[in-house]
Amino acid sequence: MKITLHSPLDMHLHLRDGDMLKSIARYSSRYFAGAIIMPNLVPPVTTIEQVIEYDKRIEEAIDGDSFERYMTLFFKNSYGYDFLKEAEKYIKAIKLYPSGITTNSEGGVSSFEIDDLKETLEAMSELGLPLLVHGETNGFVMDREREFGSFYEKIASAFPKLKIVMEHITDRHSIKLLNEYENLYATITLHHLYITLDDVAGGLLKPHLFCKPIAKRYEDREALLDVALKAYPKVSFGSDSAPHPISSKESLGCAAGVFSSFVALPALCELFEKHNSLDNLQKFISDNAREIYDIVPIKKEVTLVKKEFEVPKELNGVVPMFYGEKLDWSYDESIGS
Amino acid sequence: MKITLHSPLDMHLHLRDGDMLKSIARYSSRYFAGAIIMPNLVPPVTTIEQVIEYDKRIEEAIDGDSFERYMTLFFKNSYGYDFLKEAEKYIKAIKLYPSGITTNSEGGVSSFEIDDLKETLEAMSELGLPLLVHGETNGFVMDREREFGSFYEKIASAFPKLKIVMEHITDRHSIKLLNEYENLYATITLHHLYITLDDVAGGLLKPHLFCKPIAKRYEDREALLDVALKAYPKVSFGSDSAPHPISSKESLGCAAGVFSSFVALPALCELFEKHNSLDNLQKFISDNAREIYDIVPIKKEVTLVKKEFEVPKELNGVVPMFYGEKLDWSYDESIGS
Repeated sequence: MKITLHSPLDMHLHLRDGDMLKSIARYSSRYFAGAIIMPNLVPPVTTIEQVIEYDKRIEEAIDGDSFERYMTLFFKNSYGYDFLKEAEKYIKAIKLYPSGITTNSEGGVSSFEIDDLKETLEAMSELGLPLLVHGETNGFVMDREREFGSFYEKIASAFPKLKIVMEHITDRHSIKLLNEYENLYATITLHHLYITLDDVAGGLLKPHLFCKPIAKRYEDREALLDVALKAYPKVSFGSDSAPHPISSKESLGCAAGVFSSFVALPALCELFEKHNSLDNLQKFISDNAREIYDIVPIKKEVTLVKKEFEVPKELNGVVPMFYGEKLDWSYDESIGS
Repeated sequence: MKITLHSPLDMHLHLRDGDMLKSIARYSSRYFAGAIIMPNLVPPVTTIEQVIEYDKRIEEAIDGDSFERYMTLFFKNSYGYDFLKEAEKYIKAIKLYPSGITTNSEGGVSSFEIDDLKETLEAMSELGLPLLVHGETNGFVMDREREFGSFYEKIASAFPKLKIVMEHITDRHSIKLLNEYENLYATITLHHLYITLDDVAGGLLKPHLFCKPIAKRYEDREALLDVALKAYPKVSFGSDSAPHPISSKESLGCAAGVFSSFVALPALCELFEKHNSLDNLQKFISDNAREIYDIVPIKKEVTLVKKEFEVPKELNGVVPMFYGEKLDWSYDESIGS
C-alpha cells in the first residue's frame, strides 16, 4: 500500500539555530514542502533583518532542498502598522508567547489586557497577518491551556477579522472554542495525537516525550484525534518538533520539546490508516493549511509505503519520537531521499 | 532556635540492597531511631530467611548505629496463619503492592477480590499485623490513588480488625477515607508535603522529584499539609525515600523515587516552623506511629538547630531532594553525627 502526499506542510516547527539547525533542518526539508518557522531563538526574532538572516541560515542548512520557510516574528506590541506593512513581505505570521511559558519565551507577553496588545493586533488584523498563540497561563500545569481559553475568547471577540491560531492544542476544551469563534483555528502535533500524561509519567518518566503544553488525559487525546482524523477544516498539522541535545533532555532539569519532524509523516500514515481515515490525511497535512493561511505551497510529492520502519535511537545527537520502535509506514526509498 | 526530637521514626523506607544499601543506609540510621523497611527487593522479601538475611545486611551497612529495623514481607495470599505466626517474630507489617505499579512490584497483587486475599488478610487480622498498601490502580496517572479508594473501603469493611495503612498518600480524597473507617491509617512523605505536579513537570522536567504516586494538585498538597501539621493521630511520617543511581534517573526512562531520608528532619522542621506547628512535629515524626503500630522505639534524641544547611548535590552517587538548595534548619553538629 502506498500514499502520495501533495506538498505536506508543517505549520509549527522549531528549527533552532547554529549547530542544531545544521543537524536537524533536513529532517524537515526533505519531506515537507514548507513550514511555519518559530521565532523563539536567543535573542528572539523581532526585526526584519533578523528574519532575513535567519532565513538565510536555514537555506544554507537545508542544502538545496526545495522547502518554503514561512517565517514569523516574535510578538511585541510595539510593532505598529508601518513596520508590519514592511515586515509582511518576509513573514507569514506573528507568534505570541506568554512570558516564560516554554523554551526561550522569556521576552514574551506578560499582560493580556486588550489595551496592552491592540497596537500590534489592530495592524495585524488590517494586514491579514495571522496571530499564532502559545496558549497557556502560568497556572497548574494540567489546567494551563483550559485557563487560557478566556483570553482566546477575548481577543477573538475584540479582533473579529484577526485570524488566531491556537497552537499545539492539547485540551478538549480548546476544540469547543473552534466551533464558537469563526476566527479561531488550531494546529495539532503528532505527539498529542499519540500520547497522554501516562506515556510521559505513568510508567518510567520519559524525558523525550516531555513537552509544553504537557500531554493531557485520554479524553483530551480523543477529542484531538476526532478533529484531526476527519480533517476538520479549522485544524492543520503543526509538529511543534523541538529538538534538544540529549544532554538537555536526560538531565537534572529536562527541557520541553519532542523531536518529531523526521517521523511525523510515517506516524501520521499509521495513525490515519489505523482509524480508516487515510483519505483525510492530505487535508490535515496540507489542504486545510492552504485555506487557513491563504498560501500556495511549492509542488512536492512525498510518497509513503506500508513497510516496516525502524526509527533510529538517535539522529545527529537528538533522540526522535518513537526511538527504537517500529512504525508500519516508511518513506518510499525508491523515489530517493 | 533548637528542637530535640525523641526517637524519630520513618514508617516507610526503601534501603535497597547491595552497594546501594551500603551507600545510603547511614543517611537514615544516623538520624532516625527506626524505620519500616520496604520489601520490594529483587526478588521480593517473601520468606522468614530472607527477612533475617536482609536485616543482617542492613545491620552491617549501618555500621553500629542504633537503629531499629521494622522489617516487612512482600504480600502474598499464600502466607496463611501458621507461617505468619512464626513470621511475626521477625516482621512488623506486610506490604501489599498492586502488580507492576512501581519499582520492583512485578510480583504484586493482580486481583483485589476479597476471596483472593482473605487467606493472608484473615491471618494478619487475627495476629494484629498491619497491612501496608501502595494504593494505586493502573488507571490514568493522576487518578490512580483516588480510584483505589473503593478497594480501601472494601478491605476496611471486610476486615474491621485489620489495621490498614494507606502508604504515601497524595490525594485529598484519601484524607476523607481516614475519617470514615476506623481501621484506616496513612503515612505521608516529605516530598508530597512540599511539591505538586508543577514542581515535577511545570517548568523543566525534574527526574529527581519523579515518584509514584506522582505529586498531585495544590488542593491535594493542602489537604496533606493540614493533617500533617496538626499531627492528626491517624497519620505518621513515612519518607518513602527511594534512592536510584543518577544513571537511572537522568536517562531515557527515569525510575520513580525521591531520595529524601537525609534531608527529611531539617526540611520538616522548616515546614512545621513556617506554619507555626513545630510543637506538633514530635507527634508526626514519632508519637503517632508508636500508637498506630503499637511500638516502643529505642531511645534516640536528635537535635536540630535553625541554621543554614546547604544540601549537597550528590550523596554517594544519589541526588537528594533539595540538592544544591539551602534549608533553614540543620542537624546540630555540636552533638556529633
